[in-house]
Amino acid sequence: MTAQVIDFRLRPPVKGFLDLVMYAKAERRDGITRQHGMEPAASAQAKSMDMLLAEMDDAGVTCGVVMGRYSGLYGTVSNDDVGYIVKTWPGKFIGVGAVDPSNRRRAIAQIDEALAMGLKGINLEPGSYPEAMYADDRRLYPIYAYCEDKGIPVSVMAGGSAGPDLSYTNPIHIDRVAGDFPDLRIAITHGAWPWVHQILHVAFRRPNIYLSPDQYLCGMPGSEDYIRAANGFLADRFLFASSYPFIGVKRYMDWFLTLSIRPEVLPQLMYGNAARFLGLT
Amino acid sequence: MTAQVIDFRLRPPVKGFLDLVMYAKAERRDGITRQHGMEPAASAQAKSMDMLLAEMDDAGVTCGVVMGRYSGLYGTVSNDDVGYIVKTWPGKFIGVGAVDPSNRRRAIAQIDEALAMGLKGINLEPGSYPEAMYADDRRLYPIYAYCEDKGIPVSVMAGGSAGPDLSYTNPIHIDRVAGDFPDLRIAITHGAWPWVHQILHVAFRRPNIYLSPDQYLCGMPGSEDYIRAANGFLADRFLFASSYPFIGVKRYMDWFLTLSIRPEVLPQLMYGNAARFLGLT
Amino acid sequence: MTAQVIDFRLRPPVKGFLDLVMYAKAERRDGITRQHGMEPAASAQAKSMDMLLAEMDDAGVTCGVVMGRYSGLYGTVSNDDVGYIVKTWPGKFIGVGAVDPSNRRRAIAQIDEALAMGLKGINLEPGSYPEAMYADDRRLYPIYAYCEDKGIPVSVMAGGSAGPDLSYTNPIHIDRVAGDFPDLRIAITHGAWPWVHQILHVAFRRPNIYLSPDQYLCGMPGSEDYIRAANGFLADRFLFASSYPFIGVKRYMDWFLTLSIRPEVLPQLMYGNAARFLGLT
Repeated sequence: MTAQVIDFRLRPPVKGFLDLVMYAKAERRDGITRQHGMEPAASAQAKSMDMLLAEMDDAGVTCGVVMGRYSGLYGTVSNDDVGYIVKTWPGKFIGVGAVDPSNRRRAIAQIDEALAMGLKGINLEPGSYPEAMYADDRRLYPIYAYCEDKGIPVSVMAGGSAGPDLSYTNPIHIDRVAGDFPDLRIAITHGAWPWVHQILHVAFRRPNIYLSPDQYLCGMPGSEDYIRAANGFLADRFLFASSYPFIGVKRYMDWFLTLSIRPEVLPQLMYGNAARFLGLT
Repeated sequence: MTAQVIDFRLRPPVKGFLDLVMYAKAERRDGITRQHGMEPAASAQAKSMDMLLAEMDDAGVTCGVVMGRYSGLYGTVSNDDVGYIVKTWPGKFIGVGAVDPSNRRRAIAQIDEALAMGLKGINLEPGSYPEAMYADDRRLYPIYAYCEDKGIPVSVMAGGSAGPDLSYTNPIHIDRVAGDFPDLRIAITHGAWPWVHQILHVAFRRPNIYLSPDQYLCGMPGSEDYIRAANGFLADRFLFASSYPFIGVKRYMDWFLTLSIRPEVLPQLMYGNAARFLGLT
Repeated sequence: MTAQVIDFRLRPPVKGFLDLVMYAKAERRDGITRQHGMEPAASAQAKSMDMLLAEMDDAGVTCGVVMGRYSGLYGTVSNDDVGYIVKTWPGKFIGVGAVDPSNRRRAIAQIDEALAMGLKGINLEPGSYPEAMYADDRRLYPIYAYCEDKGIPVSVMAGGSAGPDLSYTNPIHIDRVAGDFPDLRIAITHGAWPWVHQILHVAFRRPNIYLSPDQYLCGMPGSEDYIRAANGFLADRFLFASSYPFIGVKRYMDWFLTLSIRPEVLPQLMYGNAARFLGLT
């Protein structure tokens, strides 16, 4: 364990998050949780912020990254909501903003507004936009360019059920983006699972890729290879994340600490990499 | 071991099966068997139904699923032949019919005839049709729609050498079909191998996918992940199958029972899932 | 260990090789070496042929395969340089020639010249040509046809960072080539990593595929599956290679001998397969 821990993907039961499919359809969510071999978290089922905050304390998670979302498939969380959460529980959450990529000028304006509000990066979820996109869709390129030029880190959801079908998580698209914007810091949430070997190649080749396998580290095929990489070449770019409420913060932490991870890299995996990615240090 | 065992993919040495490449070119087949680290079955080499039936008894396999086939690459087995086999050895075999997908009206008529004959489902082998198709080829969509509406289970060969090249087994195509027909029960024979991680994602996401890795479970790269899934979220959708004559029924059973599978899920893997898929229960 | 050892991919620090990115940008190369969990070789850092030859002796590597290269991404080594190396250190190196595939007549002439010079095969690196190609690009088909007809073995780089992005190493392209030219011996350098499961399927299906995972065997995700195959169906088609200077010849050998490989197949993996592939026996 380390003194500070950032959970890189955490969706608290408050404001717009309550409208997301993951809270609105609790039964579907709990089914997914059980497919991971886990039991649902009481805080998620009760939709209780107090219980979540206590659970974070209990787990030793000092801070959770809360991301805005603009999704057709899974629902929307506004940047205002994210800003509210960051302000209401000071120090407990770090905010990342979403954009509507269908109009590049509005998207750039949203980025500026998000940063002015204190949010630390931009979250793109290409496959789940109302009109599904691949991560290397040309409409996203002005956004990548802007973020690269301004030093703004970008989170890209490209794993799990991130789009209408499996093609949306194929790391080929991420590989092109990482190669075209070599100075852009990119975090892949959901770890591009199930393309484990392929995304690890991309991370091997592209030093600007950070990887957050989050819930798909848990009991899923290929997860040993994420762990091997975290112990090796990915030690300074792996990001710890529970993907709460799909997996409870405390349950994820307890389980994570049973993995064969070298103790000396834990502080990076659980804090240092996320802090550097988000520009906190 | 369980009281009843269904071998979900078994091609007996009789009628049209004898014309298939797997019996006509015994040397090629035995080479494949040895690549799995297995010795050929005596019953396959002798093309003896009596020996096969004795082998099934010896293995504790109570019933084999026999599928019609309409293939350019590997040969054809008519639904009449499948019906003959089911009737000639009562209780030993369950039949599944094939269709010619090039004409949708004839294909639907073939489905109706097959069901009238007592067959329990439809087998599609898109990559090996005289004109190779992907599983999400539009010409197959009327067939999927009909089967979904009528509650007819569909087996899709989408693994191993199921088409002219590796692209035909890419689970992207299956993912689309499973998403477009959420109430259609789909069994993937040959387990979409070698796309192990990818098909397990599809099965994780799509509850209507059943998986039969059959011969590709045996000594092949990635097979631990099939087994892990069979012990976990796939426990109620994994299908036991030898893919005989590529692997002997008895040899497969002996080997399968050495795997680290939780005893409490064996009855589902070896019987219950297939029975439910085929509508026997 | 075996009496004779062929290192199937070795780039000595001499002539045109010194202009390649791997020598010109030593820091980049050493970073890659360390990502494999290895320390850089002193001979590579000193760019010393004498040190390399001593290292080969020390490792028990009797002979290295030196390949010409015609690359936009990584630099060019002429066939004349390869011929020079083979002649200057007799018995220590086997040469393989490169071609410029943009003009089929010139490419065929280059093949004839390379063979006349004593080179033993042809090296294609489709993804890294000045105009990147896939391995099944039609412009390469006259070359494959010529080599198949003449019995000339072909090495195809289709793994690691073999092209502008991950799509260039997708084994689908290799699968098509191997199926279209069944009598052509094809060695896949860099082992089509990270597409481990997929290339092993292709090798399972296509007996004309030889596989050299070389540096990507070392500490990389999926590498156990290469080793399992080397112990099984790939025992007569796996090729031992260090990919020097990315990994030192001696370091690679020491590490390779710690792997769980059946002693009885080592002579094939380390010598026999390469000798047969190259037509030396």
